[in-house]
Amino acid sequence: MNQIDVCLSPELIHLYDITGKIVVAVDILRASSCMTAGISNGVGSIRPFADLEACKAMKTQGYVIAGERNGQKVAGFDLGNSPYDYLQEHLNGKKIAVTTTNGTLAIEKSKNAKMVVIGSFLNKSTLANFLQKKGEDVLIFCAGWKGKFNLEDTLFAGAMVEALKGHFLPSCDAPLAAQALYKDAKKDLRAYLQNSSHVQRLQKLGIDRDIAYCLTEDQLNVIPALSGEEIIALDES
Amino acid sequence: MNQIDVCLSPELIHLYDITGKIVVAVDILRASSCMTAGISNGVGSIRPFADLEACKAMKTQGYVIAGERNGQKVAGFDLGNSPYDYLQEHLNGKKIAVTTTNGTLAIEKSKNAKMVVIGSFLNKSTLANFLQKKGEDVLIFCAGWKGKFNLEDTLFAGAMVEALKGHFLPSCDAPLAAQALYKDAKKDLRAYLQNSSHVQRLQKLGIDRDIAYCLTEDQLNVIPALSGEEIIALDES
Repeated sequence: MNQIDVCLSPELIHLYDITGKIVVAVDILRASSCMTAGISNGVGSIRPFADLEACKAMKTQGYVIAGERNGQKVAGFDLGNSPYDYLQEHLNGKKIAVTTTNGTLAIEKSKNAKMVVIGSFLNKSTLANFLQKKGEDVLIFCAGWKGKFNLEDTLFAGAMVEALKGHFLPSCDAPLAAQALYKDAKKDLRAYLQNSSHVQRLQKLGIDRDIAYCLTEDQLNVIPALSGEEIIALDES
Repeated sequence: MNQIDVCLSPELIHLYDITGKIVVAVDILRASSCMTAGISNGVGSIRPFADLEACKAMKTQGYVIAGERNGQKVAGFDLGNSPYDYLQEHLNGKKIAVTTTNGTLAIEKSKNAKMVVIGSFLNKSTLANFLQKKGEDVLIFCAGWKGKFNLEDTLFAGAMVEALKGHFLPSCDAPLAAQALYKDAKKDLRAYLQNSSHVQRLQKLGIDRDIAYCLTEDQLNVIPALSGEEIIALDES
């Protein structure tokens, strides 16, 4: 049986052998949710940048630029880090260059994997079905918060372990813990996350609507995947 | 209100400012349980070593030497890593030099803290009362398993967060998650840990009796604390 593992922070990724695995990069609030929303909305490609200036420079190459630091849109950028920004109709077919605090780092650190896909509650079941079909070992890679564990990414990791139980074997304690937390939380993810540090930070920024959207399971049925430097819709035909 | 935080792995400790905090070093299976048992049994001091040979050399200086690698006693050492080894009567007043896989590393990395104490389920409530009385910010530092998250240390961290609720405020998501896991597990810690990777490894070594002992709460009422290079009984008089 294939294995499923969970890496709780980019600071721990060096402990995992990701070659030969499918890595699911996760930054629920909000980078991976934005990417899922954008790709579902017909965005042509999304290119992540760790560096803000490198991202900004893509504007001259015809990219729509999206930037967030500490939860807020960066001045001079076209889009912030709200999934609703990525759902705008005029983005159909466009190329987006994006820089975010945590999510980009996780994607950067995933590049040696066999395949990198983007996970969020939005495309949870579509992704679970895809992983089951592929039959490769899986690592759910939580972006965390400034290198630390965070609850919302871990709950998503747990949701994947739970969705894939019977098909994938947990590799160690992290998937077991994530699964237990998700089972505890799933009745009302939003209420469960009420005390989490990141949710409290975001609520101070007045983006409850984003949080509610990012925590609603199975709204979208795309698999965003890394192809070279860009995230595109995976063609499963 | 003072804060309580949880560091899930030695690989994450650089993200925490431990100066001014009391660090509780935790390696439930079995280093911190052994240390608690030993100090309770009247062992004079316990000196942890990362390096096996450095530890072995202490034999010539009159130390009893204790060594474990991958869960098993090292050849030529007096004691292994069973708490029952540390409960032997003849150890009263003796000095022990110990090297273990994960626990020693966590203690090594705690040395900039205001105070380092040793936590285990064995002395849980004694430790909680002590921390409440001290009124300093607390970091529970899980030794983990080869740098990765492990369940038993995290459950103990959660037990401390739960025991101190109302007196200490969780600093971020890790204490919240640990607390939720502990509340889920506390009815029967041993059954809960049945699927954990480390417990399964240890069971293969035939040390169920150790596991049962290490998971029994509130058997001992000592506070082992780091003083210079050695762990001694904290004198609270």
